[in-house]
Amino acid sequence: METIKAISSRTSLKTQLSSKPVEQDKINQVLEAARLAPSARNLQPWYFVVITDKKIIEEVVTGAFSEGNQIAKQAPVMIVICADPNDDVVVAGKEYYLFDLGLAMENLLLAATDLGLVTHPMAGFSEGKLKGFLGIPETFRVAVITPLAYPISGSYTDSAQERLKQRSRKKLSEITYLNRWGKSLKVG
Amino acid sequence: METIKAISSRTSLKTQLSSKPVEQDKINQVLEAARLAPSARNLQPWYFVVITDKKIIEEVVTGAFSEGNQIAKQAPVMIVICADPNDDVVVAGKEYYLFDLGLAMENLLLAATDLGLVTHPMAGFSEGKLKGFLGIPETFRVAVITPLAYPISGSYTDSAQERLKQRSRKKLSEITYLNRWGKSLKVG
Repeated sequence: METIKAISSRTSLKTQLSSKPVEQDKINQVLEAARLAPSARNLQPWYFVVITDKKIIEEVVTGAFSEGNQIAKQAPVMIVICADPNDDVVVAGKEYYLFDLGLAMENLLLAATDLGLVTHPMAGFSEGKLKGFLGIPETFRVAVITPLAYPISGSYTDSAQERLKQRSRKKLSEITYLNRWGKSLKVG
Repeated sequence: METIKAISSRTSLKTQLSSKPVEQDKINQVLEAARLAPSARNLQPWYFVVITDKKIIEEVVTGAFSEGNQIAKQAPVMIVICADPNDDVVVAGKEYYLFDLGLAMENLLLAATDLGLVTHPMAGFSEGKLKGFLGIPETFRVAVITPLAYPISGSYTDSAQERLKQRSRKKLSEITYLNRWGKSLKVG
């Protein structure tokens, strides 16, 4: 899939998760995409816990996810992205590990979209419980978790169609300035 | 360009910046890619200051960039990505604005790569001075700045070749676990 197409058709699809297994090769491809992201001083603070054991997925979702995210239990794969904030640059309280995890995560999401797989990065979970279930060390912080799955029916494009129609984003003119804060970029 | 190709060939190329102007349409396309990123609760905290005025680029780079980043002065376009941390979710000190800016920035970088343009996200700058030059409000934090430019010579692929050969990343086996922290994913 073309890059711009993957960027524009990537959307969060927790309601479209098939329980059909995802091949190990595809799991590796999305992790490989994440691995290639840039990071501050190339420190690469990211770690990924990939859950494929159904019992552990059940335990984690039921025990640590917010109510609205319980639907993710369907997924055959869950990927947790986390880091130790001490492993990355901090500038006057600006903790770059989170920025760097965002860079890596977007690569992962786009690679999944390209492979026809659905994702949904979720921040609604009990971090303490999640870390407990998975044995993630005390000093680490979990940024998000995403299910990775085939869509319930049809292709990725079919599954995403309705959701993309409803997608809500600020206009470019609301979030961009030219040369100085407050000066319109006139992007039409 | 195929998504996986853009992800694998994206690299930071501050030594390859041509001063040739970048068309407004291409600037808009990379901003549009950033705009479509996901964010916590869809809060979209991102703002972009696009600098195309040569005098302002000169002033900002000379006055606010670290020594190693002075070379970016060549670029015809600089893009600053920033947000007010109060505009996004905070969970026990975990400030999601940085994660969300990372998601948006990676879309921007990949769209640029796809268009044959070079980028280099930089965190080495004086945030106070930069905000002063551009009039960015007190409460905002700048995550990174990237030049956006055509490569000095040849295509993107030509320009990136040497740098990609030298790219250093942790192995997948060092950063991934299966089902539980410490348990090898065996990614070969």
